Amino acid sequence: MSNIDLMRRVFHLARQGAGLTSPNPMVGCIIIKNSEIIGEGFHQKFGGKHAEIAAIENAKTSVAGSILYTNLEPCSPDIPNKKTPPCTDRIIREKISKVVISTIDPNPYVNGKGIEILKKAGIEIELGLLTDEAQRLNEKYFKYMQTGIPFVHLKIAQSLDGRIATSKGKSQWITSQSAIKMVHELRAEYDAVLVGVKTVIADDPSLTVRLVKGKNPKRIILDNDLNTPPGAKILSDSNHNSTIIFTGHQISLQQKAKYNQKNVEIFQVGSNGKGNLNLKEVLNLLGELKISSILVEGGGEIFTSFVKEKLFDKISFFIAPLLLGNGIQSIGELGINTLAEAYKLDHVAFKIIDQQALVEGYRDYNSLFKFSKG
Amino acid sequence: MSNIDLMRRVFHLARQGAGLTSPNPMVGCIIIKNSEIIGEGFHQKFGGKHAEIAAIENAKTSVAGSILYTNLEPCSPDIPNKKTPPCTDRIIREKISKVVISTIDPNPYVNGKGIEILKKAGIEIELGLLTDEAQRLNEKYFKYMQTGIPFVHLKIAQSLDGRIATSKGKSQWITSQSAIKMVHELRAEYDAVLVGVKTVIADDPSLTVRLVKGKNPKRIILDNDLNTPPGAKILSDSNHNSTIIFTGHQISLQQKAKYNQKNVEIFQVGSNGKGNLNLKEVLNLLGELKISSILVEGGGEIFTSFVKEKLFDKISFFIAPLLLGNGIQSIGELGINTLAEAYKLDHVAFKIIDQQALVEGYRDYNSLFKFSKG
Repeated sequence: MSNIDLMRRVFHLARQGAGLTSPNPMVGCIIIKNSEIIGEGFHQKFGGKHAEIAAIENAKTSVAGSILYTNLEPCSPDIPNKKTPPCTDRIIREKISKVVISTIDPNPYVNGKGIEILKKAGIEIELGLLTDEAQRLNEKYFKYMQTGIPFVHLKIAQSLDGRIATSKGKSQWITSQSAIKMVHELRAEYDAVLVGVKTVIADDPSLTVRLVKGKNPKRIILDNDLNTPPGAKILSDSNHNSTIIFTGHQISLQQKAKYNQKNVEIFQVGSNGKGNLNLKEVLNLLGELKISSILVEGGGEIFTSFVKEKLFDKISFFIAPLLLGNGIQSIGELGINTLAEAYKLDHVAFKIIDQQALVEGYRDYNSLFKFSKG
Repeated sequence: MSNIDLMRRVFHLARQGAGLTSPNPMVGCIIIKNSEIIGEGFHQKFGGKHAEIAAIENAKTSVAGSILYTNLEPCSPDIPNKKTPPCTDRIIREKISKVVISTIDPNPYVNGKGIEILKKAGIEIELGLLTDEAQRLNEKYFKYMQTGIPFVHLKIAQSLDGRIATSKGKSQWITSQSAIKMVHELRAEYDAVLVGVKTVIADDPSLTVRLVKGKNPKRIILDNDLNTPPGAKILSDSNHNSTIIFTGHQISLQQKAKYNQKNVEIFQVGSNGKGNLNLKEVLNLLGELKISSILVEGGGEIFTSFVKEKLFDKISFFIAPLLLGNGIQSIGELGINTLAEAYKLDHVAFKIIDQQALVEGYRDYNSLFKFSKG
């Protein structure tokens, strides 16, 4: 196996932890000795063993003199509230000769320090193999680590003519079963799913992971006037204690009382001056709550606000081959007057899923990965 | 070569006449003797030799006892105003033993008669090889022959959020160069291009074929109140005598006088009762003018009318990966209230061209090919 093949295998191992490691990154590890893979491992879940330790402990022979491959810089001792001993110590103690790394760790407490420590101990370092792929693999982690603000992914299911619902507000099942399954896979990879209260009222969605195996995300409702029906599924099902409502400062204790039996968290934030919640404040607060990634599932006004305020990182359009004519538009007023001002997506990818087109892009791809060193 | 490979080669030959044979179909022909191709031909242009005659005349040896492959039933003598002698006569005279045909000719004057004549002369007939592909190859011809109404193809270039122009009406160059080249290829295959007067006023388009080799289509403007600027490119360039304006019955001779120097045809048709032209009347008249296919290029109101009145056959969305927010929508009010009423496209195909998604579908694919026999 070439170096590239080995690192791709590392990515494959890392992905086994998808949805389980957050707010930690997905990390895989392979150990090579005499051109043979002697150990493999990955970070299985938040708080669990790091990939390097798992690979060392799974190794079938001594790892002394071996080469270790990992997609992310091994962790160093300075991380606050660290749940596990630093991987750098263990790599040095085990007398591993060389470490091949795709990208440095954007965590400001690591950010090159892990590599420095290994180098000082005389271990050869090769940094930069498949960096782009490694960064994209952990795009949510990179964003959150560098900014403290969650990675925001807008997921829009619409008709060809850009409608997310009929004029009567009906939107569920616009997309095909395969596309819906993909959405469930996406949900399982995000810390939280966010919707506006109008979507809760119109669709009464569960926003859980049902069609695939995976953990349910937290559920967030943006509800300036606190209109979420207390009987909504999202407040009543077996996961209701994972639901968070954001509402305005003007809401009284009395108004909040209708949710007293619901075991739901209610946060009050400021207004954006136009009758809606201040999204920046919402995102900052979610970051403080250690929610590192959010999948935004609607509706149109919510999508429009995230786009207009440039607060999204990624956007996915699932486009069904049907026409609705009038109805609720996916994206409304953005204040754009000329084609030159049109919002061009970055790093666009196209896929075809069943009878759906999937178009994905980023607001500003490179900005996600601008850490200080590397 | 298998029978299927031979027929695919026939289609390939037929396509060499794309854009040149209308209102005739594209037809290719191969002649086989002793398992060898001895002659090939295709219908090169309207009024020119039919494919069968071209193949017979190109044959390097005698065609007596040979097998002839063609995508369309050979023509019989009863077609009015026939420009060429019937192919059936020539096939019989040349003592060809067998004819393999993909589909019968929907022309009501042929429609199985060609096959009957050949059978009566003792020629073996094999009908039905790759019928679907052969029908799609000549979809415009099938529609026009069976209904007398042109095949109508809506071509919509839009942003991801379903806008064909900014709020200021600017729309040109939303799509990439490759997509624009594809549009020029499309134009060369249609008898006419149709736009609404608002598009002429906003964009002053040429609607000619420039980026590829091919003939320019006729240009049709729907202009109820006769507002087309006499100085518009479409009325002034070197092809201006190919332009047709449809306007309302209320327009006076005096109002039409401003185009007197323009050598442009103006037809007056009825209203649809809502201040717009009666599209059915427009299409019937175009059919009588022997225009068998139309590419509709905008704007939003025109697209919406064709969809709402179920008067289109095919629709192509070129979707650019950008967002415009408010602006001019591709499809407006269709009177749809529930998802069950949503307009589902038929026989949908997806392609990716550069940084564009292309989604194509039909209003009712099978209805295009419902001829009486076959």
